[in-house]
Amino acid sequence: MSSKNAFYAQSGGVTSVINASACGVIETCRANGDRIGKVYAGKNGIIGALTEELIDTSLESDADIAALKKTPAGAFGSCRFKLKSLDENKREYERLIDVFKAHDIGYFFYNGGGDSADTCFKVSQLSKTLGFPVQAIHVPKTVDNDLPITDVCPGFGSVAKYIAVSALEASFDVASMAKTSTKVFILEVMGRHAGWIAAAGGLIEDYGIPVLVLLPEVDFDRDKFIAAVRDKVENHGYCTVVVSEGARNADGSFLAEQGTRDAFGHAQLGGVAPVVANLVRDALGYKFHWAVADYLQRAARHIASATDVEQAYAVGRAAVELALDGHNAVMPTIERVSSDPYEWRIGTADLADVANVEKTMPLDFISDGGFGITDRCREYLYPLIRGEDYPDYDDNGLPRYVTLQNRLIEQKLPAFDL
Amino acid sequence: MSSKNAFYAQSGGVTSVINASACGVIETCRANGDRIGKVYAGKNGIIGALTEELIDTSLESDADIAALKKTPAGAFGSCRFKLKSLDENKREYERLIDVFKAHDIGYFFYNGGGDSADTCFKVSQLSKTLGFPVQAIHVPKTVDNDLPITDVCPGFGSVAKYIAVSALEASFDVASMAKTSTKVFILEVMGRHAGWIAAAGGLIEDYGIPVLVLLPEVDFDRDKFIAAVRDKVENHGYCTVVVSEGARNADGSFLAEQGTRDAFGHAQLGGVAPVVANLVRDALGYKFHWAVADYLQRAARHIASATDVEQAYAVGRAAVELALDGHNAVMPTIERVSSDPYEWRIGTADLADVANVEKTMPLDFISDGGFGITDRCREYLYPLIRGEDYPDYDDNGLPRYVTLQNRLIEQKLPAFDL
Repeated sequence: MSSKNAFYAQSGGVTSVINASACGVIETCRANGDRIGKVYAGKNGIIGALTEELIDTSLESDADIAALKKTPAGAFGSCRFKLKSLDENKREYERLIDVFKAHDIGYFFYNGGGDSADTCFKVSQLSKTLGFPVQAIHVPKTVDNDLPITDVCPGFGSVAKYIAVSALEASFDVASMAKTSTKVFILEVMGRHAGWIAAAGGLIEDYGIPVLVLLPEVDFDRDKFIAAVRDKVENHGYCTVVVSEGARNADGSFLAEQGTRDAFGHAQLGGVAPVVANLVRDALGYKFHWAVADYLQRAARHIASATDVEQAYAVGRAAVELALDGHNAVMPTIERVSSDPYEWRIGTADLADVANVEKTMPLDFISDGGFGITDRCREYLYPLIRGEDYPDYDDNGLPRYVTLQNRLIEQKLPAFDL
Repeated sequence: MSSKNAFYAQSGGVTSVINASACGVIETCRANGDRIGKVYAGKNGIIGALTEELIDTSLESDADIAALKKTPAGAFGSCRFKLKSLDENKREYERLIDVFKAHDIGYFFYNGGGDSADTCFKVSQLSKTLGFPVQAIHVPKTVDNDLPITDVCPGFGSVAKYIAVSALEASFDVASMAKTSTKVFILEVMGRHAGWIAAAGGLIEDYGIPVLVLLPEVDFDRDKFIAAVRDKVENHGYCTVVVSEGARNADGSFLAEQGTRDAFGHAQLGGVAPVVANLVRDALGYKFHWAVADYLQRAARHIASATDVEQAYAVGRAAVELALDGHNAVMPTIERVSSDPYEWRIGTADLADVANVEKTMPLDFISDGGFGITDRCREYLYPLIRGEDYPDYDDNGLPRYVTLQNRLIEQKLPAFDL
């Protein structure tokens, strides 16, 4: 049989290890050159498939592909773009088929989170619905850790490590200064719908740090929160607060929404940290500082979790192996065999069970008061942030992150308007 | 002669390597046990000397003292507290002498920035003015890099490395997403009066990143800035902005002051990043994200510069050696011998020339347009961020930072009201 080519694309918010998955896909395809042709990467995700902007990864050296394992963000570009259903937008699916046919693509590897799993599932149905044979395998990725079935989503462990390390370090700082200066430090972290990332900040309680976490899963109770901050400061001299961007009031509104306005009275975007800081100032008068980690947290390849890097690579490799075994509409998962010692293996999930299902934190991961995490949560989290997988550094003192050539293949089709 | 004891204290905002200086002081004192007695550390800086809260560092193990070299923040507590002049507050000086006499202290090592150098200088004059023999040596430290005479201030190199690495990583993230999402990323960094830290963000231009820096040294010109952002986005698809917290308008007011108010109309504290973000939104409509590094940057021991750690230790050691050589009212400095290859040695500055003098960025470090740095600045900065000096990590995946016992010695004097 002739070797079909593969299409690979990155989707949604990028992570510090999504390129490690790309590396796993491409290296495994290269190792199976007798059965898979070239790997074309979509420029800016699925958009590249629609616009026929396909990057020929075969032109990249083995060394540069290997360097992807140590490079953050999306080397081929990602996008926020969700395919509609076939009924709503048949035109896009027909275009995908045209592009796949034109470039002899038989494998579709899609690297993303929940929305992307939905896209991948739709593509996986093309062989049935439009009679075109393509095997679609989803490669899990999301810092939000909210995909179902898999024990963890590659990308999450590294953010969790970054947040735990950063919160620990900043807490040491505040502890030093609390006598005459800052007493409350507030760190805003990602997590619009689920508190997984903020929960990682809760780990530093094990290191003697007086820390409170504010999770989207727990309705924010101002009075209880203020009392908890006062208690920490009175007993420890200071308090660290790790707040999820998705922290919300009992009425469902985000804390971040509760109204900061610029000089012209325009609602100002963003920042739950300053909102919490002002609550503390108004109620307790403590001196405070706040930080917003934003993209720094999900791009921080310099402090990636070795577990996470290994798993990100493994799901990329497994996706190709599943395709070679004839699978379609599946996603490799991380199955936890045991926590102590930590053992895991690759499993498989049907995409029909993954698409559009969101996993939030189990309630038994959240401590009674709602401001901390339980031992079950600790047992879950620690293995995921274990180990350091440092990038190499150049002589200037900066990491050697690779930028690929990203040369596009010649287009064969008429232009397509998105 | 009998061995006098030494007093050591940390002062002002802490850094990721101030404990490396403490390690240098204590280890060098231990190595000279025939000439120096115990090292007493001030609990919370100079306040501990006034309140006679002295930590007996001789009770700490060699291993724990060595671990200080890899632990961020101030292990003995720091403070923001400036001694008044002798004329204004003789009572505090007399108290210091009482404490020094009671505990046979002949050496005063003070680890801080500009204000602290002033305090140290005042203490150094006690032998002349109040007839009490004490040798006072200042140990330089400040992330602001604004002490005169010394080529660099320990603490700065590690922040510079953190900011350059973080800005590079976040820029990779934005570059991935810019097609359909964030086009402008704004990172707020420290530097109230000098742009040294923001300048480090400018280094990533060498890595192909379209970056603009906003420095306190350059009057902010809204129209020029907006035009520069537009230019970067149109030519590169995205733009990274590294803004100093001290960025200011032509009238001297801070950008951060230009008025965000909470729902009640109260002025809201902090955050030049959201102010810049809103300027970009209003003028250009680009999607943006912003981060505020705050304490994360100066506590980030996990990504400390090896050069910085080595120099922080060296000034601690040199301070003790200067004292043993009979010096008073001096500060060890870092003298740059050459940039390429980078060579440096320890020098000495008179405290009279250091106290209350602030070094800002040379104008020839700032590029013509005011939004970037020059080759001279690059040549200055790169050696300071070179090398990685990683902490050890425990089995959980978190750094092994030491917390000392910090046992206080028995007090001999009546209480003292601050």
